[in-house]
Amino acid sequence: MNINQRLSDLREVMQREHLAAFIFPSTDPHQSEYVADHWKSREWISGFDGSAGTAVVTMTSAALWTDSRYFLAAEEQLKGTEYQLMRLKIEGTPTIAEWIGRECGGGAEVGIDGWCSSASAVKDLIADLRKQGGITVRTNLDPLKFIWSDRPAIPEHPVEIYPLQYAGEAAHDKIARIRKALREQHADGMLMTALDDIAWTLNLRGTDVHCNPVFVSYLLISTKDVTLYINKVKLSPEVVAYLKAEGVGVAPYEEVQKGLKDYFEYNILLDPNEVNYALYEVVRKQESEVRSATAIVEAESPVKRMKTVKNEREIAGFRSAMLKDGIAMVKFLKWLSGYSENSEYSECSEISVSDRLEALRAEQPLYRGLSFDTIAGYGPHGAIVHYEATPETDIPLQPEGLLLLDSGAQYLDGTTDITRTIALGPLTEEEKRVYTLVLKGHIQIELCKFPSGASGTQLDILAREALWREGLNYLHGTGHGVGTYLNVHEGPHQIRMEWKPAPLVAGMTVTDEPGIYLAGKFGVRIENTLLITPYKETEFGQFLQFEPLTLCPIDKTPIIKDMLLAEEIAWLDNYHEYVYDTLAPHLDVEEAVWLREACSPL
Amino acid sequence: MNINQRLSDLREVMQREHLAAFIFPSTDPHQSEYVADHWKSREWISGFDGSAGTAVVTMTSAALWTDSRYFLAAEEQLKGTEYQLMRLKIEGTPTIAEWIGRECGGGAEVGIDGWCSSASAVKDLIADLRKQGGITVRTNLDPLKFIWSDRPAIPEHPVEIYPLQYAGEAAHDKIARIRKALREQHADGMLMTALDDIAWTLNLRGTDVHCNPVFVSYLLISTKDVTLYINKVKLSPEVVAYLKAEGVGVAPYEEVQKGLKDYFEYNILLDPNEVNYALYEVVRKQESEVRSATAIVEAESPVKRMKTVKNEREIAGFRSAMLKDGIAMVKFLKWLSGYSENSEYSECSEISVSDRLEALRAEQPLYRGLSFDTIAGYGPHGAIVHYEATPETDIPLQPEGLLLLDSGAQYLDGTTDITRTIALGPLTEEEKRVYTLVLKGHIQIELCKFPSGASGTQLDILAREALWREGLNYLHGTGHGVGTYLNVHEGPHQIRMEWKPAPLVAGMTVTDEPGIYLAGKFGVRIENTLLITPYKETEFGQFLQFEPLTLCPIDKTPIIKDMLLAEEIAWLDNYHEYVYDTLAPHLDVEEAVWLREACSPL
Repeated sequence: MNINQRLSDLREVMQREHLAAFIFPSTDPHQSEYVADHWKSREWISGFDGSAGTAVVTMTSAALWTDSRYFLAAEEQLKGTEYQLMRLKIEGTPTIAEWIGRECGGGAEVGIDGWCSSASAVKDLIADLRKQGGITVRTNLDPLKFIWSDRPAIPEHPVEIYPLQYAGEAAHDKIARIRKALREQHADGMLMTALDDIAWTLNLRGTDVHCNPVFVSYLLISTKDVTLYINKVKLSPEVVAYLKAEGVGVAPYEEVQKGLKDYFEYNILLDPNEVNYALYEVVRKQESEVRSATAIVEAESPVKRMKTVKNEREIAGFRSAMLKDGIAMVKFLKWLSGYSENSEYSECSEISVSDRLEALRAEQPLYRGLSFDTIAGYGPHGAIVHYEATPETDIPLQPEGLLLLDSGAQYLDGTTDITRTIALGPLTEEEKRVYTLVLKGHIQIELCKFPSGASGTQLDILAREALWREGLNYLHGTGHGVGTYLNVHEGPHQIRMEWKPAPLVAGMTVTDEPGIYLAGKFGVRIENTLLITPYKETEFGQFLQFEPLTLCPIDKTPIIKDMLLAEEIAWLDNYHEYVYDTLAPHLDVEEAVWLREACSPL
Repeated sequence: MNINQRLSDLREVMQREHLAAFIFPSTDPHQSEYVADHWKSREWISGFDGSAGTAVVTMTSAALWTDSRYFLAAEEQLKGTEYQLMRLKIEGTPTIAEWIGRECGGGAEVGIDGWCSSASAVKDLIADLRKQGGITVRTNLDPLKFIWSDRPAIPEHPVEIYPLQYAGEAAHDKIARIRKALREQHADGMLMTALDDIAWTLNLRGTDVHCNPVFVSYLLISTKDVTLYINKVKLSPEVVAYLKAEGVGVAPYEEVQKGLKDYFEYNILLDPNEVNYALYEVVRKQESEVRSATAIVEAESPVKRMKTVKNEREIAGFRSAMLKDGIAMVKFLKWLSGYSENSEYSECSEISVSDRLEALRAEQPLYRGLSFDTIAGYGPHGAIVHYEATPETDIPLQPEGLLLLDSGAQYLDGTTDITRTIALGPLTEEEKRVYTLVLKGHIQIELCKFPSGASGTQLDILAREALWREGLNYLHGTGHGVGTYLNVHEGPHQIRMEWKPAPLVAGMTVTDEPGIYLAGKFGVRIENTLLITPYKETEFGQFLQFEPLTLCPIDKTPIIKDMLLAEEIAWLDNYHEYVYDTLAPHLDVEEAVWLREACSPL
C-alpha cells in the first residue's frame, strides 16, 4: 500500500478543484460505525484501519485524529507516511478546524464529502472553519472516485427475514409505534438512515457489513407510505412478498433523493446527527426556497430508543445466546487452562486462541459469526485498546502474565460481548493490584441501583472511582447497548464520562467494561453484558438494577482479596454460583468439574 | 395580600392588550437567583415567595411551576388562590407551553417581560409555543407597571470597594484576563449582566439584594473601553475615583441600550443564558438589519469560570471565614445541647434558635450578615426543603427527633454555607437509618478523587448510591460553588443529576449537601463547603480531591455504625480530629471540653 502515492494523486485532484484541504471522516452515508469496504475512504487514504478516525490532507501536510483506543495502533500504521497523529482528548491537540486554519490560512476552501458525514457534523465544521479567518467548505465532491481505481462496489448481499419468534414484534406493529412517536413529536414522517434502525424496524437482516447483520438502504416513512430504498438484487421474491404484506414499498437505493423531493407532507423528522449532510440539504434547500415545502423537524429518531428496549422474546433470545456463548467460553477457558498445567503455552499464540474460541462458538446452534473482531492481547499487547493480532504482530503465549480477551458472537437469537482477562501463570503485584481495581469498578456497576431515567453518564464514576483513587483511568466508555442479532454497539444510551442524556430504562441491555491499559506492560478489562430490570418502587419513584446476562467465570487468581469490600466479594461469589448452576447442566463432567473450581467462593 | 384582586387587575390589562396569558418568571434583568423587591413580580402576582418558580395567568386560570424544594411551601402559600401547583420533574406535570396550549388554544398571543428572562429562555419559549398551534409571544410589556401601585423602587444603596487584601487581584488585572479570554473566543467585547460577575470583576460590593452583596448594574467591555451602567447616586467620590483609576467609565443604568447601539466593534460576546431577551434583541436586530453591524458571539461569559477559581488570598479568606463560622457554630451547638441536658427545649423554637445562631455569628469579626435566610426545620418541618419559619409556622423544640439547620453568613473575607442535622433526644430507627445513609453519601463525596476537568454531574451519584439502594432520593442538587463575600450560589459548576458541563478544577469551592425529606416525618441534610485541591499527577493526568473548609462537628448520636464502611468511619474520625485541633485554641475551656466529646472517635 503506497500511501504517499495516493496522497500525491489526491493533491492533483485538490489542485484542479482549488481545494486547500480535504477531510475524510470514518463513516458512510448511514453514519455506520463499521462500514462496507466501498466507504473505507479514510483507511484507503491514510492506511489507518481503526473504526474511528478522521484524516485531513492539505497540499503540504497530512494528519489523522483518533481516540485513545487507537493511539498505539495508529502510531504503528502511520509510520513511514506523511501523517502526523493527533491524539483526541489529550491536552495540546488542536481541533481539525484549528489545524486547518493554521496550515491553510484564512480564505481557503476545503472539501468534505457531504454524503459521508452527518448534517450536524458538517454544519459544526462549517461554523468552526468560518472562525478560522473565513475558511469555506465544499461538500459535493468525492475526490476518491477519480483516483481509487480498484474501489470495492457497494455490497449487494441478499437480505433475509428475521423470524418473529426472535423479533417478538411484527414490522407493521413497529411502524405503527414509530408513527405514533412521530405524531407525539409533531412530525408527519421521517427518513431513517441508520442501517440497524432499518433492520430492526423491518425485521430484516443482511450481511453487507463485517460482523454487523445489516444491509445498505434508506427507509422513508410518511403518514401513508413506507418506502425501502435498496438495490433490488438484494431482495428475494419471498422478501419482496413479505415487505408488501407488511405495507412496505420498494424503490432503488439511488432514488432516495427523488423520494425526499416527492415527499409532500407538512413536515418530516430528520435527525441531524444521523442523516447525512447531502440528504439533509435536499430538504433544507426546498424548505428555504419553496414557501409551501416540507419543514424539517430536527429531533432524535424515535427508533433509537425504541430499539434499545428489548421485548420478552428478545430477552429470552439474549438468555439463550448468552447460555451458548457461556458454554463456548467455558470450553475455551478449560482448554486454555490445560496448557497452563502443562506449561505448553508456546503452542498457543494470540491468533490461535482467537481461532480456537471462534471454532467453539461456531459449534453452538444458530451461530452466525463474530459480532466484532476478537481482541486477544497478550502481555504488552493487552495495553493496545483495540488490538487485533495480525500474522506480523502475533506472539506466542507464555506461562505468566495476563491475556486480555474481548470477543463476541452473533447468534440468530442474540448478540454477545464479553471480556475476560486471564492469568496464564505468575503475576506481578502491579498486575494483581490493577486487576483487582478494575474488578472493583466492574462490580460496583453490577451492584448499582438507580432511578428509572438516570443517564449512563451519572453511573459511570462507579466503575472508575477505585481507579481514580490510585491515579489510574481509562479514556473509553464503560458500557454500551447491545443489539438483538444486530450491531454489538447500540445507542443512544451509554455508560461513559461524556454526557449521554438517553435515559436508562428497564429492558435495555448495556455492557459493563472498565479497564486499565499500561503501555508496554499489560492491559486489564472485565466485561459482562447486563440487562436493566425493575428493582423497587417507592414514594421516590421506580428504581432499577442490573442483571448480568453474560455467563462465564471471572478469573479469581489475580484477585487481592483484601482490596475488595464485603459486598464485592459477596457479589462475585453469588455471580459464580449463578454461572455454575446455569451452565453445569450443559457441560460434560470434566468441564463441570473445571467450572466448579473456577466458580468456587473467593 | 389579596391575590385574586391582583389577578383581576392583571386580566383587565391582558384584555386591553389582547393577551391570552401572561408569564411571570422569578428573575430580574440580570438573571439573579435572589432579586431586589422591585422585581418580585412573580411573588406579587402569586403570593409564592420561593426563590424559584414561574407563574402563568390566563383569563380563566392560573398556575405556578416550582421544583421539589418548594412543593410543600408552595402548597401552603397558594391555598385560597386560583393557582394550581405544577410540580416540576414529576411525571404528568405539563410544561408551561403545553399547559398554555391547552388553556388558550392555537393562534393566541401570550406575554412575557423580555427584560426579566434570558434570551435563550424566551427563544425556547417562542419555539415551544409555536408548536402549540402557533401561539405567539409578545415581550415588550410589563403589565405590573399599571397595577402594582406600591411597587418598591430599584434599590439605590451605596457601593463599596472590596479591598485587594481579600480580592487578591486588582480589577484592571481581572479585566485584562477577561479581554484575553474574549480574544481566545474570537470576541472583541462583551456585555456583562450577572450582578455577581460585575462585583467580582470590579472588586466592588453592594447591598441591593437581600443576603447577596451585589449592586444593580451592567458592565460593557470593548477592546478599548469598560463602562459601568449604574445609578450614579450609588457611587461615592471615592468609588468614582477608584473606578477611574482602574480604567472604568460610568454611565446611567438606563443607558445600557444606548451603549449597545453605540458599540462599534466587529463582534460582541453575549451569553444567551445570562443576557436578558430585551438587550439581546437590541444587538440581534441591528445584526440582522444592518450589514456592517456588530455580530453576536453566543458563548458562556468567560467570567463565570474565572470567578469560581479562587486565588490564594481568597482561599486564605475562606479559611478565616470558616474558622469564625465554626466557632459560632460550636458555641451554638454547645448552647443547644445544654437545653437537651435539662430537657428545657420548650423554651426554644425554630425562630429563637435561628436568632441565637445569627447573634453568635454577628459577634465574629468582619461579619456582614447572613448569606441566605436560615432554614431551621424541626421534625416534619425538616422535610420542607426550603422551609423558613415564620411566626405563624414556628414550633417549639422537643427533647426528641431531628432539627435540620441550614445556614450561612457573609464575612468580609468569605461566605459560608453549612447544614447540620441535630438529634434533640431519642430517635426512631428510621431517623437513624436515613441519617446514616445521608452521611454515607456526604462522606463518599468527601473521599472522592477525580481527574481535573470532570463534571460535577459525574460525581453526583457518589452522594446518592447508598440512598438509591434503599429506594430513597432527593431531587435537589448535591452541591454548588460559593462566592468570595459574594453570592452563596455560584455557578456554573455544580454537583447534581442534571448535566452541568463546567469542569471541576483546583481552587474551586463546592458544597456537599445530600439530604432526604420524608414528608410529614422529618428531614436530614449534612453539608460542608469543600475546596478542590490537587491530589496526584500520573501518566493519566492531574487528579483532584476535596478538602473540607467547613469546621464543625457532625452529630454522631444518630449514626448506626454498622452501616458505615471502614473508610467512612476513618474519614469522620479524621475530620473530627481536624475540627477539634483547629477550633479548640479559639474556644473557652467549657466549649473546648464540649467539642472534644463531640469530636471523639466514633
